[in-house]
Amino acid sequence: MLRLFVTPQLAEGASVPLSADQAHYLARVMRREVGAELLLFNGRDGEWQGEISALSKNAGVVTLRAQTRQQVASPDLWLLFAPVKRAPLDQIAQKATELGVSCLQPVRTARTIVTRVREDRLMANAVEAAEQSERLDLPEVRDFTPLDKLLSHWSNDAPDRRLVFCDEAGDAEDARWGGETGRALPMTEALQPFRGKHHSWAILTGPEGGFNPKEREMLRGLDFVTPVTLGPRIMRADTAAFAAITLWQAVLGDLDKPFTKA
Amino acid sequence: MLRLFVTPQLAEGASVPLSADQAHYLARVMRREVGAELLLFNGRDGEWQGEISALSKNAGVVTLRAQTRQQVASPDLWLLFAPVKRAPLDQIAQKATELGVSCLQPVRTARTIVTRVREDRLMANAVEAAEQSERLDLPEVRDFTPLDKLLSHWSNDAPDRRLVFCDEAGDAEDARWGGETGRALPMTEALQPFRGKHHSWAILTGPEGGFNPKEREMLRGLDFVTPVTLGPRIMRADTAAFAAITLWQAVLGDLDKPFTKA
Repeated sequence: MLRLFVTPQLAEGASVPLSADQAHYLARVMRREVGAELLLFNGRDGEWQGEISALSKNAGVVTLRAQTRQQVASPDLWLLFAPVKRAPLDQIAQKATELGVSCLQPVRTARTIVTRVREDRLMANAVEAAEQSERLDLPEVRDFTPLDKLLSHWSNDAPDRRLVFCDEAGDAEDARWGGETGRALPMTEALQPFRGKHHSWAILTGPEGGFNPKEREMLRGLDFVTPVTLGPRIMRADTAAFAAITLWQAVLGDLDKPFTKA
Repeated sequence: MLRLFVTPQLAEGASVPLSADQAHYLARVMRREVGAELLLFNGRDGEWQGEISALSKNAGVVTLRAQTRQQVASPDLWLLFAPVKRAPLDQIAQKATELGVSCLQPVRTARTIVTRVREDRLMANAVEAAEQSERLDLPEVRDFTPLDKLLSHWSNDAPDRRLVFCDEAGDAEDARWGGETGRALPMTEALQPFRGKHHSWAILTGPEGGFNPKEREMLRGLDFVTPVTLGPRIMRADTAAFAAITLWQAVLGDLDKPFTKA
């Protein structure tokens, strides 16, 4: 059944207006008519089943019948990622949403080539992914920000939030990390000690060229940073992000929870 | 530095011929000339640094200097996946290669819409991913095969190989699985008891519409099958495959191993 994200409140009997784009999509692309059933969610009131009670090519109303799922909170996990070219960037927004991040934060690092990020496009991809993957809320999309600026305000803006630094080849490339100080451990091992502790978290993944030595040194010196490795294969930027989110969800997130219907 | 997959033996001083496509790529796309350095791997002899000793628009030779990495074996993990439309299918071949599967096996399930799979295209995507992600070998690509045929020959063709059945919504949709029999556990929990045991493994992910009740019943009744869930969000087919491979690599594979250079 079709699922759409809307912003109004959802409740039994409510008449929920659709956007012009949604009306066009339903009427012209999916060929739905008045009386057709669909599901709505708004990130606050769970998921509701309703039927189209009015539809033209640029407006529509859905009348709600019954709640199909209760709202559940997503884990508090930000993804800080160096944006890459367009197709992988769409993929990052979509799959990070499916994998359950609460915030998409594009960051500019030393080796980031992309100079401009369309945050509206990130959000459109996140909405599409949430609609198609049974997710009940959307990640927040933040503005493209320099990494060093974000880190210098970290303790004020995000007290008690820890940062997983995915530095895949770091230990292999830089002899300084041979010792124990700031050494990167495999991600699941590095996160185990934090089970049951009430931190919020963020994951940082780099651009195709990785992080430069200065960034590495700075990141590994910060007390809220946990440097990790992702195994013996160096993945592309988007793949590394998907793997890191999955592992975080398995160790500290909600992958042990079932999918539930009302 | 550019990395290329080749088939000949690699050894110090060897002159390795390139394919016409590779010569074209180096000469015309990447504008390389005689004397340029690059890396070669063949899935058997590790990774070698060499330089171009001859190059025309459709032929080339690389003379090898020194081994840069020793060969390491990839974990023995097959991915059985219901093929989806073209772009996500390319993604599955690429990212499953980056995440380290040893075999890509497209399977036809009841709800699989795709009727034909271009195995050569799967292989081209796997080669590209291995070249760009520092992997030292390639996954095998097998022919598109009906799932029931594969399962009926399983014990003969793959003795001692266990199958992770990713049935995301299964427990929620079918009241029969409410009890303990054949119940799906979260993937990391389901795999823990197999740590340190010497099985080989495969992962099965479904098409966009999931598995039908008959397939579920059959799969959950097989003694080599471990049904699992992947958390409270229903992911799209390709995302579910990436998450399942990542979790398998973390629990039973090699994600605890570092990336190593010679």
